[in-house]
Amino acid sequence: MKITCKKTEILNSVNIALKAVPAKSTMPILECIIIEVTDSTIKFITNDMELGIETVVNGLITTAGSVAINAKIFSDIIRKLPDSDVVIETDANYMTTISCEKSVFTIAGKSGEEFPALPKMEKNEPLILSQFSLKEIIRQTVFSISDNESNKIMTGELFEINGNEFKVVSLDGLRISIRKIFLKDEYKDTKVIVPGKTLNEISKILSGELENEVRIYFSERHILFEFDNTIVLSRLIEGEYYKINQMLSGDYETKLTINRKMFLECIDRATLLIKESEKKPIILAITESSMELRVNSSLGSMNEDMEIVKEGKNLLIGFNPKFFIEALRVIDDEEVTLYMTNPKAPCFIKNAEESYIYLILPVNLGVVR
Amino acid sequence: MKITCKKTEILNSVNIALKAVPAKSTMPILECIIIEVTDSTIKFITNDMELGIETVVNGLITTAGSVAINAKIFSDIIRKLPDSDVVIETDANYMTTISCEKSVFTIAGKSGEEFPALPKMEKNEPLILSQFSLKEIIRQTVFSISDNESNKIMTGELFEINGNEFKVVSLDGLRISIRKIFLKDEYKDTKVIVPGKTLNEISKILSGELENEVRIYFSERHILFEFDNTIVLSRLIEGEYYKINQMLSGDYETKLTINRKMFLECIDRATLLIKESEKKPIILAITESSMELRVNSSLGSMNEDMEIVKEGKNLLIGFNPKFFIEALRVIDDEEVTLYMTNPKAPCFIKNAEESYIYLILPVNLGVVR
Repeated sequence: MKITCKKTEILNSVNIALKAVPAKSTMPILECIIIEVTDSTIKFITNDMELGIETVVNGLITTAGSVAINAKIFSDIIRKLPDSDVVIETDANYMTTISCEKSVFTIAGKSGEEFPALPKMEKNEPLILSQFSLKEIIRQTVFSISDNESNKIMTGELFEINGNEFKVVSLDGLRISIRKIFLKDEYKDTKVIVPGKTLNEISKILSGELENEVRIYFSERHILFEFDNTIVLSRLIEGEYYKINQMLSGDYETKLTINRKMFLECIDRATLLIKESEKKPIILAITESSMELRVNSSLGSMNEDMEIVKEGKNLLIGFNPKFFIEALRVIDDEEVTLYMTNPKAPCFIKNAEESYIYLILPVNLGVVR
Repeated sequence: MKITCKKTEILNSVNIALKAVPAKSTMPILECIIIEVTDSTIKFITNDMELGIETVVNGLITTAGSVAINAKIFSDIIRKLPDSDVVIETDANYMTTISCEKSVFTIAGKSGEEFPALPKMEKNEPLILSQFSLKEIIRQTVFSISDNESNKIMTGELFEINGNEFKVVSLDGLRISIRKIFLKDEYKDTKVIVPGKTLNEISKILSGELENEVRIYFSERHILFEFDNTIVLSRLIEGEYYKINQMLSGDYETKLTINRKMFLECIDRATLLIKESEKKPIILAITESSMELRVNSSLGSMNEDMEIVKEGKNLLIGFNPKFFIEALRVIDDEEVTLYMTNPKAPCFIKNAEESYIYLILPVNLGVVR
């Protein structure tokens, strides 16, 4: 095998492929990147058995062939090479030389035979959306998946398609995040659970450009994302997702509108006084035209008045500040509207179109105040 | 005590004062910052018993007084406040309120009585140089102090003044770094050992501007740096510094000149293949008009040819790459000149004026090749 590629081209492709390389694996071959060269294409392939990536590299092919190389060493070498043409060549024993200008590296590769091939997937009609939209939707929901592996379904996100509506949901037992967008076309109804890890890695690879599209294919057990020169294939999480519609009551007793950035900064300041171990809530005291935010902890106390526009009843309610911070950070609107019922019922942050809904459970103040 | 200061002013001063706050101390009072307000001055004072800092804060004084506040909490609060006027006020029990716009923090302070006062130092004629020069000199030498506390002297730097020559030396047993500058005036001969930690912290505080000066005062056991609104006072390390002049032979058998940046990048690439635990050297094979750099390790091998201008004998010699990388990084010259004698004698990197000299001991190739 012998190829010649620009350093920047290889580096871009390696950075994409690295996203499916496990840090440590009981199968050492998974720590490798497969360089697969046919007469017409150079591909980098990686697979951590949950997630598989195949990305096409631009370059000149002298001889076809393939080799498995430790992904970390390969990427470290490429990164440090001068910005010039790189020649990668393997001999019959998979000894691989990487040359660039006057620098020559020689490392031992191995056969890619043992490497688990990515599952073949039949490509039906894909869901098409812009990379920008997909990246945004992931960013706006993925923070509220659970990292507790004992409940596998909570570690993923629901992708639900109904006609031309695409809905993404994540929840961790104390909060729910929902994002809805409308698609240009109508699609077959679909409901799958995508691993949060897959979405985190995908969103790092997506360029996020509005004009670049991503095509998403579904099969019974897999999801495939196709964009630019890359395909990312992931297992789905098996099982039935939670019925969330029954939790989304439209009733409220208190509705308030507040400047998002000022509210976020205020909670962020208050959080200084909260030690992780103490689990102190922030307390919102909602009166006629202002809301006082209060914190009391072993480190000290803080209070701050914020201007609000309010409808309905006054209310004293407590929350885990982290849940508010994470939701407020990903909302793009300048102002947000909160809907609450009583100190024990969830708070909803949502816009009029309900293109986003964040449900946050309160903390029982009877105990902590 | 009551003062009003701009948030940015307090933040700058806090960031300076924090440099002398120990992360954890058996004396909790040392984790505090002292706010000391007289009728005319607001000062922040910190002291970790090695290093003491006093910095003057611009602001409006309403009532004099003083308080000790946990430095970390205080700095966290200031950092998160809106960019506006901040009022700090203490009551008779040292309860301290920090108010900014509508945000009010209350934290418990304490009396500063227990706080160890900075030692008083008589101010003789100071050594005066630009902040730029001092910052550069520290950067160009401090990397080769030893972090082994069992040999206290090696953890500091020699500051030596002879007439109008100011020389700074650091060494760790395997290498020596020397920087010399000429001062505008003549000074009394002085020789002190300044803790490396002090110099690291000082160089973070120095603005590094050419037009701002720093005044350095010496006493038998202390050194005092005075610049901008700040004084930094440090203990000196007691003892006699190493006699380094006898190690600086002017003889050589091989002299070569090489592009500094290309040499640095080449070593940096080679170092990829060297695991910390293996302690593999880089090998320099110096021939007529080129130098080949070679590395062989369990991860693979690398070689690269570099152009050099050479005088004297050919040579095969090995080094710890880290020592070269650290020296080459801090030299500003485009080309560097290396002087070597044989594979067991030190290599010198120095310029014609000897304003810098880096001595690096080689690795015995007989064992490792």
